[in-house]
This record gives sequence, structure tokens and C-alpha cells, in this order.
Amino acid sequence: MKLVVAIVQNQDSKRLADGFAEKGVRATKLSSTGGFLRAGNTTFLVGVDDKKVEDTLELIKENCSTRSQTMMSPPSYDFTLESDLTYPVNVEVGGATIFVLPIDQFLQF
Amino acid sequence: MKLVVAIVQNQDSKRLADGFAEKGVRATKLSSTGGFLRAGNTTFLVGVDDKKVEDTLELIKENCSTRSQTMMSPPSYDFTLESDLTYPVNVEVGGATIFVLPIDQFLQF
Amino acid sequence: MKLVVAIVQNQDSKRLADGFAEKGVRATKLSSTGGFLRAGNTTFLVGVDDKKVEDTLELIKENCSTRSQTMMSPPSYDFTLESDLTYPVNVEVGGATIFVLPIDQFLQF
Ligand code: NI
Ligand code: NI
Ligand code: NI
Repeated sequence: MKLVVAIVQNQDSKRLADGFAEKGVRATKLSSTGGFLRAGNTTFLVGVDDKKVEDTLELIKENCSTRSQTMMSPPSYDFTLESDLTYPVNVEVGGATIFVLPIDQFLQF
Repeated sequence: MKLVVAIVQNQDSKRLADGFAEKGVRATKLSSTGGFLRAGNTTFLVGVDDKKVEDTLELIKENCSTRSQTMMSPPSYDFTLESDLTYPVNVEVGGATIFVLPIDQFLQF
Repeated sequence: MKLVVAIVQNQDSKRLADGFAEKGVRATKLSSTGGFLRAGNTTFLVGVDDKKVEDTLELIKENCSTRSQTMMSPPSYDFTLESDLTYPVNVEVGGATIFVLPIDQFLQF
């Protein structure tokens, strides 16, 4: 067994939790902030058989990879401009930081 | 030293924290959800001497094991029935998922 | 790589987070309570290169060591006294409990 500690952005955490549930993987969610990723992230603790570690990492990669997303810019607050037009901008979202930890014992009561 | 990560149901977490305190075991509590157990659980981080790991696991087992509990069913919302009788049902409560992790260094400042 | 798990008092956590940021160290914050330290603490998860572990521990020590602090006592609620004088008292604040954990794999997507 390994303990997979995965820190992902909040916007991806519901989808990842659903992905774990579909595969019958039991994941515990902790609310976390800052640091590895921008503010507002989720730390998953997942107990995984050694043979399933690769699949678990793959699942996280599929659901949480860093990707570019087009958003509308916020309206300008420059009142010297005559319009409040917004325009599309690319922002980077998602991303996961993962630690795979060795385990001495795994128990369930 | 080992780091014991124990995920238990909220309803057992106060009793387990008291059990740790009585034995002089210092445990840090993190609020967690879902996954290993039903929604609403607590993740304990406990630093334990190698010789005390078995006692710590025993303490968790005593306070958090899965057990059957008799509850009164919620009153029926079936308005075709003439009564709102409740009746006893058995539900499974408790349970703990535990990872015992090796430690390279343990420090206190 | 190592995973440094550091539990510090809330009053030191902003300063430590700033210290990590200045050194370019990415730390994830989890809200925690009780146990190792008095109620209200913060658990940091920090992924650190083997060569940077000592520096990271030093940074935590500088920002979070247990120290004595002079505070004004709360006013007396003993109404038999004719004054509500407060007086300086020494209290111990701060402190950190740290686990340095080995890692099998560290990944970022
Ligand atoms: Ni294993
Ligand atoms: Ni040891
Ligand atoms: Ni390493």
C-alpha cells in the first residue's frame, strides 16, 4: 500500500472525487489553501495498492492537469475609456502536486 | 517514531481525542470529508514512539470500531398510511482507516 | 524529496507562510486544532529537496520557536476586590512539531 497525497485546485476537486468513486477508490478530502497552487485547493488522502498507484496517478492527471482556459477579462475600471468592453484572455488553471508515501501499516477497524 | 494518520467518523472523534489526552498522546485534528468513511470525518495526526504504535492502534480500535447501532427510523412521509409510527432499525456506525507512516526526522521547537 | 509536515500555532502561521514565499518554497496550509499544540494551529505540507531540508527546518525554527511573551492578565472578576487592575504575566507561545517523511514519488501535473 501507498498513501497518495494529492493537492488539486478546488475547481477540479469534485470531478476528481467522482473519478475516484467510479473506480471504487476511497479518498478523504481535506480543505487546504495556498502554496503549491493558488489559494483554494483540496488535499486528497488516498490509500492505494502498490499495483494501482500508476492508475491513480493517471486519474489525477486526466482530471487536474494544468491547462489554458479562455476567460472574459473583467470590465475596465479606467473611466477615461468610453467603453466597459471585456475581451478574452488566456489563464492557466488546474494543476496537481502529488506525494506518494510509503506505508508501514494500513489498517481498517 | 511513526506518524499515525487515523481517519475516523466525527461521532467518535471527541471520545478518541479524550482517549489520547488520558494517555498523554498528542494528536492534531484536521477536519475532513467523504471517501474512506461517510461524509463528516476527522483526520488525526499522531506522532508515536515505535514501542507505542500497538497501544495507539488498540486505543483507536476501542473507540472507533465499526459497530451496529439501533436507531428509530424517521417517521413515514407516506400520507396514505394512517400513522406516523417510527420503528427501530440497525445502522452501521464508526470505523477507522489508519496509515502508519515511517518518519525520517521528528522535531519539536 | 521529503514531505515536511509542520504543525505550528496560528499566530506564527502567517509569518512562516511569508518566510516560505520569500525563499520560493511552496507550502500548502491545512487548518487544524488541538493536540500537539494548544487549540488553533496550522498544518503545513511542504515538498522539499533533500538538500533543502535543513534550511526549511531552520526557517520554521526561526519563525515558530516556543518563547515567553509578556501579556496583561485579564481583569479580575472577583467583585470582592475594589479594583479591576490587570498585571503583566509571562505566557509561553509558539512552538512547532515537525515530521520529515520519506517520499517514493513526487509529481506535478
Ligand atoms: Ni505497500
Ligand atoms: Ni522510528
Ligand atoms: Ni528524496
